[in-house]
Parts: sequence; structure tokens; C-alpha cells
Amino acid sequence: MNAQKDGSINSVVYHPIGIIRSPHKEGSKTPIQPIYADGCRGFVEIFPQYAEGLRGLEDFSHIFLIFHLHLRKEVKLIVKPYLHDKEKGVFATRSPHRPNAIGLSLVRLEKIEGSRVYVNDLDILDGTPLLDIKPYTKELDSRLTSKDGWIEGIDPKEARRKGRRTGT
Amino acid sequence: MNAQKDGSINSVVYHPIGIIRSPHKEGSKTPIQPIYADGCRGFVEIFPQYAEGLRGLEDFSHIFLIFHLHLRKEVKLIVKPYLHDKEKGVFATRSPHRPNAIGLSLVRLEKIEGSRVYVNDLDILDGTPLLDIKPYTKELDSRLTSKDGWIEGIDPKEARRKGRRTGT
Repeated sequence: MNAQKDGSINSVVYHPIGIIRSPHKEGSKTPIQPIYADGCRGFVEIFPQYAEGLRGLEDFSHIFLIFHLHLRKEVKLIVKPYLHDKEKGVFATRSPHRPNAIGLSLVRLEKIEGSRVYVNDLDILDGTPLLDIKPYTKELDSRLTSKDGWIEGIDPKEARRKGRRTGT
Repeated sequence: MNAQKDGSINSVVYHPIGIIRSPHKEGSKTPIQPIYADGCRGFVEIFPQYAEGLRGLEDFSHIFLIFHLHLRKEVKLIVKPYLHDKEKGVFATRSPHRPNAIGLSLVRLEKIEGSRVYVNDLDILDGTPLLDIKPYTKELDSRLTSKDGWIEGIDPKEARRKGRRTGT
């Protein structure tokens, strides 16, 4: 972590804690969100030095994976969402073209064996570096929203068909 | 992003896109989760070069803030959660003592004025560097969990009282 003269931080450095193993080998054939990836199974291989940190995680049915979008090349502040035809600011979308290439996926945890965390609903490319895991609970992480932005206008059935992208 | 000989990545570098301004000036008096921070208002000051990326964000009632826990000093793989009396792996908790000091908070968006994003439910320390904003929608991000781990055993009223920590 580097600080500027005024004390503010100008960069942060993270080290992957594991790697994501998934059936998705191509970006263009990877589901765009976990809810479109039902049945897409894979696992996270946690590096041995961090495996102790998984204790108790198996008691949760859903977990957040936070990862580095390692194949993202270009940053775009204005993007056209995959399921929408109007341009939006990148922070109003889940596009990978964000200034910091951080991905967030909420997946179903199926089981843990040693340092392998097996999951379903996987919308992440094979070989993606994992930065963090956090437990998801309905009490802490579920909300009744009043406005869902441009996503409100999308037909859920059509989104499910187009958003899956794997052809399966 | 640095690669090792086998092609895997051993570090990633991010640059803050803004800074979080909040009423919380001390870690020990900061609410531990957004659901315990009703009425704690503040704003995110997005740096001017990224402000265009906010376009359309005002149409969402809830947003994820992803930030760097800049005051986290020690990494602990086993922690005792604030609201629980048994030790757990850090990835089964939301403790700041994680290997990569990444924070995730789901907050209510109140309004956007220029490059300032005003929010409620703020459980983040003043001066925290912001790494990313993502929109939250009930369709994409809300789940019916079947197991909520050690958090199931906590009395919601007691959690609300203890988890707020600000004394207000």
C-alpha cells in the first residue's frame, strides 16, 4: 500500500488466496451472472497456507467469491450492458471493464474437501485468481430494493436464455 | 499484475477510485454491518476522472461498495466473530483480519450530486479508499439460503444493539 504526500493511498496490492477451476474456458461462452449459471459446477482451490481460514464455511449454503478479472484488458467508463441497449456508466453495471478489475459472484456452496470448495452457479472463467471468500446470509445480505435501475426493464426469461451463453 | 513462471498471478494492484466520507472516526465505534447502521449517512467522493462511470447509478436503491480496509494490520486465519463466542475460519466471517483486506458493504443509495454518492446504512470508517461500486438488484443478488452458519444462532435484537456500536 503506497501513500501520497497528503496521506491518501494511491495503490493497494493483493495476493491471490486460490484459483477458480470452472468448466468455462472462453469469456464469450461464460454465463454473465450466477443466476444464469444453474448447474455450472466447479471448485475453488485454496492455496495450502490459507486453508485453515475455511473452518466453519461449510455451514453456509451461499458464499461470495471476490476475484480478479485477470483477462480484462480495456477500461471503459461508459458501457452497453450485455442485456440492455442503452449506454450506462460502468459502475451502474456488472461489466468487467471497470477501473479496478474486481469480480463479485454469489454462488452456492456444495461441499468442502480439504482445501477445495465445490460450488454451483459458477459464472467465472477457469484459472481466475481468487482474492477473498465471504459468507452470505439472508439476514445480512438480502434486501428489499425499491429501484433496480435498467435491470427492471429486462424480461427474466429472455435474460436467462441470453445470459447463460454456454449453449447448454 | 505480476505473473509467476507458470503463468499464475502472484499479485494484483488496484488504485482507489474515490474515498468514503462517514461519521465513523474510530474502528471500535463503527457498526459491524450495514443492517446495524440505519441512519448512518455519508457519501462517497468519486475522483473526477471516474465520475462519468456513475451514469445511471441513481436508478438503483441499493449498491455494493467494495473498499480497502486500510487500517487492518494483522492477518488472522482463525478469528472469534464479534457476535459469536466460538472461533471460526476468517473466510466464514466478515472480520477485517482477512489475507486481502477487501471490504464489501451493501448500502442504500440516497442521491448523487456530481461526483458525490450519498448513502445510508454506512458501516465504513471515514477516509476509507473505495475500489469499486456495483449495483445491487433483488433479481441478481438476493437468495433464499438454506444454511446461514453460525449467524443463525444469533438473536437479531441483541445483534442489532451490539452490532451498532455507535451508542446512538
